[in-house]
Amino acid sequence: MAESERVTAAVLIIGDEILSGRTQDTNLNFIAKYLATFGIDLAEARVVGDLKAEIIAALNALRTRYDYVITTGGIGPTHDDITADCVAEAFGVPLYEHPEIISMMVARWQGELNPARRRMARVPQGASLVRNPVQGPPGFQIGNVFVLAGVPMVMRGMMDDVGPRMRPGAVVISRTIRVDGAGESAMAAPLESVAKAHPNLSLGSYPFFGPDGFGSNLVVRGRDEAEVAATVDELIGVLDGVGARSITREG
Amino acid sequence: MAESERVTAAVLIIGDEILSGRTQDTNLNFIAKYLATFGIDLAEARVVGDLKAEIIAALNALRTRYDYVITTGGIGPTHDDITADCVAEAFGVPLYEHPEIISMMVARWQGELNPARRRMARVPQGASLVRNPVQGPPGFQIGNVFVLAGVPMVMRGMMDDVGPRMRPGAVVISRTIRVDGAGESAMAAPLESVAKAHPNLSLGSYPFFGPDGFGSNLVVRGRDEAEVAATVDELIGVLDGVGARSITREG
Repeated sequence: MAESERVTAAVLIIGDEILSGRTQDTNLNFIAKYLATFGIDLAEARVVGDLKAEIIAALNALRTRYDYVITTGGIGPTHDDITADCVAEAFGVPLYEHPEIISMMVARWQGELNPARRRMARVPQGASLVRNPVQGPPGFQIGNVFVLAGVPMVMRGMMDDVGPRMRPGAVVISRTIRVDGAGESAMAAPLESVAKAHPNLSLGSYPFFGPDGFGSNLVVRGRDEAEVAATVDELIGVLDGVGARSITREG
Repeated sequence: MAESERVTAAVLIIGDEILSGRTQDTNLNFIAKYLATFGIDLAEARVVGDLKAEIIAALNALRTRYDYVITTGGIGPTHDDITADCVAEAFGVPLYEHPEIISMMVARWQGELNPARRRMARVPQGASLVRNPVQGPPGFQIGNVFVLAGVPMVMRGMMDDVGPRMRPGAVVISRTIRVDGAGESAMAAPLESVAKAHPNLSLGSYPFFGPDGFGSNLVVRGRDEAEVAATVDELIGVLDGVGARSITREG
């Protein structure tokens, strides 16, 4: 695969509640799977607290390095919601009240726009809005950065307006071989020999310990469907001698 | 609180399976809660793939910045398990086969030490072992870095040998006030006024949309129990005018 076909993204999760352990993040996993359907590689993720300097530094590190950055969290109406301020500062542009968001709010709340609500109408100059089909104000895009809500239901709704704006990459095909009754140590050598023969593919081994004993899921990932299929066959061939109870193609 | 009482940590999650979306990480949340019981602030987390340069760069960025770093993942026997190699390179020391791990393996596998198993016995020079009470070889500590397994059950077991090695901080007290029937926008101004009056505390608002309607959990966090308790009272006082259906101390 030519490097130009590879499209990369990073996720920046913003929020004290993730780092304090109060909230179990599920946004990263959703975004990872979603991006995969567009052939976009999630290359890195970071979690930072509600601190301006931290958010700006992480955002600048990620946006200069990857094709896209998706942020989640910190766009509500309270004092600890500082994502818009940080993104504006990172891009060196001012925030302004977006007239379309103000209109939505006026229509919805019949004119009751307190300062906290107006706060959610602020976007950096030059940003475009990301539709929120669920609840509350929209997200926004500026340059290669998409700024989304942290509430999973809302973030998921917004992603449907994010994916189509990205340059798609070649989709990664993933195939799993489930090996029961053989440990990773027994499979390591054959797995490595196959991995070395296919530098364009990624071969991973994910052990499990279940009620029926131990084993491992071997995952072959790559962008060339024929090479992935041939490598699955090759791997099943070399696993013949490892003494597994069963070797199953999981699809 | 004096800054010297603050003890910080970062988590580095290593593994393609998290970034591909194949696996939902739960280690970060567990570690965050665990560290909180020792009064240690989880200040940042990063997720990187199974790539040597990425792992080393992230590890060096985090270990020079925070009091402790905990890594999860990449210590198994297969070719994609490169965490020990990366940690050794980051610290500029060689890897060697730790005699204690070799002894454990010999005792357990009755001498069947293939190269894949020996691979798991390698630790950086100067490292001490982290006990694994669950399954498989131990983790290790070198300097301020703890290298743990990625499998949650194993990682959790190892944490019991990590916490006691850390310098404890002043434990953070956290109290939650549940507000039903009032939106964040209505509460933002009183919440901010209380937050500004207590710069040593962290006040967060975490909205919810449940079957019984919307509301928000307001969380007061800080290291001075009396100040946290007084602030909860103060907050309940100023929330009087926001038109909530109910305001409940959740403890």
